[in-house]
Amino acid sequence: MTETTGYSGGGPVLIKNPHLDSMEEDILYHLDLGTRTHNLPAMFGDIKFVCVGGSPNRMKAFAQFMHKELGLEGSGEDVADICAGTDRYAMYRTGPVLSISHGMGIPSISIMLHELIKLLHHAKCRDVTIIRIGTSGGLGIKAGSVVITDTAVDASFQPRFEQVVLGDVVVRSTDLDRELAEELLACSKEVPNFPTLIGHTMCTYDFYEGQGRLDGALCSFSSEKKLEYLKRAHKAGVRNIEMESTAFAAMCRLCGLRAAVVCVALLDRLEGDQIRAPREVLREYQQRPQRLIAAFIRRRLGLCPPPATEGTTDLHGL
Amino acid sequence: MTETTGYSGGGPVLIKNPHLDSMEEDILYHLDLGTRTHNLPAMFGDIKFVCVGGSPNRMKAFAQFMHKELGLEGSGEDVADICAGTDRYAMYRTGPVLSISHGMGIPSISIMLHELIKLLHHAKCRDVTIIRIGTSGGLGIKAGSVVITDTAVDASFQPRFEQVVLGDVVVRSTDLDRELAEELLACSKEVPNFPTLIGHTMCTYDFYEGQGRLDGALCSFSSEKKLEYLKRAHKAGVRNIEMESTAFAAMCRLCGLRAAVVCVALLDRLEGDQIRAPREVLREYQQRPQRLIAAFIRRRLGLCPPPATEGTTDLHGL
Repeated sequence: MTETTGYSGGGPVLIKNPHLDSMEEDILYHLDLGTRTHNLPAMFGDIKFVCVGGSPNRMKAFAQFMHKELGLEGSGEDVADICAGTDRYAMYRTGPVLSISHGMGIPSISIMLHELIKLLHHAKCRDVTIIRIGTSGGLGIKAGSVVITDTAVDASFQPRFEQVVLGDVVVRSTDLDRELAEELLACSKEVPNFPTLIGHTMCTYDFYEGQGRLDGALCSFSSEKKLEYLKRAHKAGVRNIEMESTAFAAMCRLCGLRAAVVCVALLDRLEGDQIRAPREVLREYQQRPQRLIAAFIRRRLGLCPPPATEGTTDLHGL
Repeated sequence: MTETTGYSGGGPVLIKNPHLDSMEEDILYHLDLGTRTHNLPAMFGDIKFVCVGGSPNRMKAFAQFMHKELGLEGSGEDVADICAGTDRYAMYRTGPVLSISHGMGIPSISIMLHELIKLLHHAKCRDVTIIRIGTSGGLGIKAGSVVITDTAVDASFQPRFEQVVLGDVVVRSTDLDRELAEELLACSKEVPNFPTLIGHTMCTYDFYEGQGRLDGALCSFSSEKKLEYLKRAHKAGVRNIEMESTAFAAMCRLCGLRAAVVCVALLDRLEGDQIRAPREVLREYQQRPQRLIAAFIRRRLGLCPPPATEGTTDLHGL
């Protein structure tokens, strides 16, 4: 069974669930929000950009950074966690930008996306663009490179996401919005000091055995077999590896959200497994997708030229 | 390909990775610990009990609770996060008990377990018992019931965990330690005010479609099909549903750790999907596995009778 609905393009957020209309109340449990306890249209109706990433601290730093980039009043340092009543996810807003953490792995991002998409629907948001800004392992690219995903692929390099529904597997397409990816690549020219490229992103169910690492608690394969697998992935067009993109692409596509995945590579997996770069270097790497997305949002909002592309001194607290 | 190694039983933590010995340094990236930067045997060598759960706040509250239950000096309120340098996981120790968060879903707990198991190995720990204390949806049991897992099963009710290794599927056994489960059930008699039972636990890759919920952003099935699936699960022996147990059982078994899964049911899924109980009720539910494990650890350490089984006033801050 294959589901192949495409993007609605610039319209409302689509809920593919006929049961939802008949619910008197919708409790978004893992966000600690609900349709009876919160005025979601008033809180979120004007959101146009949603940025998601694994780490709560990083998503807070991104909200603070965007506050400055948008030229909003105040320092933005005191941005409040909208999901403060739970520690499952953290959520911040600044202007028309929502910044949310999703934890690590497909199940964790999937819970957040179900509740986020319902939130955007209840809030009657329109024309929403959603971007995952994350970290990844690179494949044949220099550490610090930023990869804009054209297609998210699984561990067999196929552009599909297998969702289990009532014990049966449903196969979903993982294509991302090509125009958005090209627009982001064009924006990257405005942000100096790091290479940006478009490529396939492989999404796995774990960080060690699933990504061919030799340094986990369990490893049953040789260094040669590992390299053979990673080189096959590279030949198939994979340029980086992470743990959320297939589910993210599939769900956003089904719900009519223009979506992109922009991840920095913390290392080149053809060179090693352990993340050894000094903390300050890793911190600067993690700011790169944020700088690119800030330039993109400023451009979309007609705020040009972006002021922060000259350096990274405005970014801190990752 | 099936891997069926059993428990070593009371010995060292087994690392099933021949490459690890030749590494000069092991950076446990997501725990912000390492063999060169930290004296792991000094920090963790005497750990005998490891408790893991999804929420960082809950695992901090458990460490504070255990501090009191063990009769240690001081209030325990100021227990420090050993992984403070990262926000991926939180880790606390009190006496011989380590308390660690693992986020939501198999990929998230898998990363933590790889690095935790290596940590226990590097620290030369012996006779370690590991217990997941979590929340779940019940199946045909009263909300607030505590389920001790005998076998973790997948969405087809099979006792297996499918791990992808270099693109190929490896099937692993998900049996848990039967003696430990019986010991925990015996301990539950000492902890009044809630029902405890032994049953199968179903582990899924998401919270909505994977668990047959009608209230996600996506739902393609009827209420009748949902109930038919959940009733089949119940008939197969499933008494609760969560998102980590198969991977947890499989990894602990392979690495010689005596392991148990003890989860409270926040609702009965045969009655509904949304988690509607008041926050105070849910808070008390979440303390139940903690009270049971505290009684178990006190019994193992010869500290009897447990003082906190009379009420829940010692527990707070969940």
